[in-house]
Amino acid sequence: MRAARYYDRGDIRIEEITEPEVGPGMVGIDVAWCGICGTDLHEYAEGPIFIPPAGHPQPISKESAPVTIGHEMSGVVYAVGPDVDDVSVGDHVVVEPYILYDDVDTGPASHDYHLSADMNFIGLGGCGGGLAEKISVKRRWVHPISSSIPLDQAALIEPLSVGYHAVERSGAQAGAVALITGAGPIGLLTAAVCKARGITTIISEPSSMRRQKALDAGVGDHIVDPTSEDVVARVKELTVDGRGADVGFECTSVQPALDTLFDALKPTGVLVVVSIWSHPGSVEMQKLVLKEIDMRGTIAYVNDHPAAIALVEEGKVDLAPFITGRIGLDNLIDEGYETLIHRNETAVKILVSPSGAGV
Amino acid sequence: MRAARYYDRGDIRIEEITEPEVGPGMVGIDVAWCGICGTDLHEYAEGPIFIPPAGHPQPISKESAPVTIGHEMSGVVYAVGPDVDDVSVGDHVVVEPYILYDDVDTGPASHDYHLSADMNFIGLGGCGGGLAEKISVKRRWVHPISSSIPLDQAALIEPLSVGYHAVERSGAQAGAVALITGAGPIGLLTAAVCKARGITTIISEPSSMRRQKALDAGVGDHIVDPTSEDVVARVKELTVDGRGADVGFECTSVQPALDTLFDALKPTGVLVVVSIWSHPGSVEMQKLVLKEIDMRGTIAYVNDHPAAIALVEEGKVDLAPFITGRIGLDNLIDEGYETLIHRNETAVKILVSPSGAGV
Repeated sequence: MRAARYYDRGDIRIEEITEPEVGPGMVGIDVAWCGICGTDLHEYAEGPIFIPPAGHPQPISKESAPVTIGHEMSGVVYAVGPDVDDVSVGDHVVVEPYILYDDVDTGPASHDYHLSADMNFIGLGGCGGGLAEKISVKRRWVHPISSSIPLDQAALIEPLSVGYHAVERSGAQAGAVALITGAGPIGLLTAAVCKARGITTIISEPSSMRRQKALDAGVGDHIVDPTSEDVVARVKELTVDGRGADVGFECTSVQPALDTLFDALKPTGVLVVVSIWSHPGSVEMQKLVLKEIDMRGTIAYVNDHPAAIALVEEGKVDLAPFITGRIGLDNLIDEGYETLIHRNETAVKILVSPSGAGV
Repeated sequence: MRAARYYDRGDIRIEEITEPEVGPGMVGIDVAWCGICGTDLHEYAEGPIFIPPAGHPQPISKESAPVTIGHEMSGVVYAVGPDVDDVSVGDHVVVEPYILYDDVDTGPASHDYHLSADMNFIGLGGCGGGLAEKISVKRRWVHPISSSIPLDQAALIEPLSVGYHAVERSGAQAGAVALITGAGPIGLLTAAVCKARGITTIISEPSSMRRQKALDAGVGDHIVDPTSEDVVARVKELTVDGRGADVGFECTSVQPALDTLFDALKPTGVLVVVSIWSHPGSVEMQKLVLKEIDMRGTIAYVNDHPAAIALVEEGKVDLAPFITGRIGLDNLIDEGYETLIHRNETAVKILVSPSGAGV
């Protein structure tokens, strides 16, 4: 079968590799679509980061580069291991792409399996990837979905779960007001979750094309340009008694956004940092203390997929507007990665059809 | 009556002033003891900060310098307003020293009255102070205490409530492990609250005299010198599976302490910032995100006094070891402020007897 394999920074190859074995406890999936994630771009341009370099096996998967990439996937089950009886051939599924030690508690009550030692992701740290025609995944990480969800949209359930987890981390309830800095893919999907849960959102985004995308996608109750408008003043206008936002979602990894959030939040406000910064942030500790701000990190998802899937199945989140491109595996670099790296203001999510059947 | 009055930076005068009126809704208190707080020292050395400078009245109290200072007070009721029927002459009391607008909800369910607009403190922003023989305080801010609590120790209930609120903010439960950076008064009192609530504490403090004070006071299950020991390694040794501390309390306002806490906390750990920083902090955003740390500011107290008083009444916190000096009003500057500013490694809490009766 054909697969995209990461050898090193700037070196991803489309190759013919052996099909995966579907052993005990595993589910074989014909990949329909796989999205390209910001993390993939970082690995390509600046990595390896999560990807284990050649000769340095990942402790759990024991694999190192070259590895098959892609972790935002949807597909159809084509085989199940002999002991798997709750997923059937033909089922539509998405993957929660974790690589964890076998002794980690991944039960429904766990709130921290995603933070366990040596955690990595399928499609980065080994165990196959979504940028291949087929993948074999442990049953635990396979989530069946209704066939009413188009498989292209289903490939966005993984990043939607990131947004879902961020909103869970915020503790925000219906009726709350959220300021979201940044209308990239994660900012937009976080806004979509907020909308589905009755949280009013104000999106601050300097790029006019991204602001337009938020409008087109129907997320963001108020969309503000921080280069021409006073975001803090707008937030205060839009909140009761001018108190400020209940919660904030930092989805940019730039300092001015963090500063704005500290000023725009109400006392006791919650600031969720969703973006992965490559540098330290400067935090106004006096504001943190005197306003009793809660600044919370959030990463990936933990038992969030079922609820994220339900939002899509119930029609509360429409993922279609976030798909801005569909390509085959051969165009992964030139039409996929290069578009997202160099023309990322108009592109939100580019989907890849590994078999080419979808394009 | 005699009172210590703040005129300006470096200018505090002991003066004869008129006794306060005990009008409707008010409680007249003969001050027994009043502690000197770090905030008082900042006002003296670097202020005015909370204190309204001459000609710039505080919006709620309408007062400006000179103002009577002192906000950590205990005393005995000598008069009550005509409509006050639940406090009696002779009652022992402490004061929760807030200046708030009348329309702020200060009911028992409020968790944010201390963060309301223009909030200030009695003894800083006007409304009299504890460094005077008498004070008249709104009934809402007077907390009766058992006469079994010596009045000198009772003067420490205000800073104990700061520690109590910090522990409340952490959400830590009995059995948790806390790392406290800094064994100044607030670090020690936070440790005392932790001990009372069954939370194991590790105190990191570079001053040998302060480490000794923690030992003498019987707080801190493990006391570590960060200049000679690897605090993070010690914390990992002392926690299950080497995961790290459940919660951290930053009580130093220095950067290395903050860095240590980010490394010493377990994933999902809570970092409570108790100290008031005069400069921005540098935060490793990647650690915040990848460990899902909650970094929470805490300031003063909100409905915390009753529980802090109960800890003392029940004998779960012994405040006696934290009293390191007793002086009269005439020695406020030379034996009080100057000792704390220049010899603050041995002094924890110096109490002032405004009438001189206690010394």
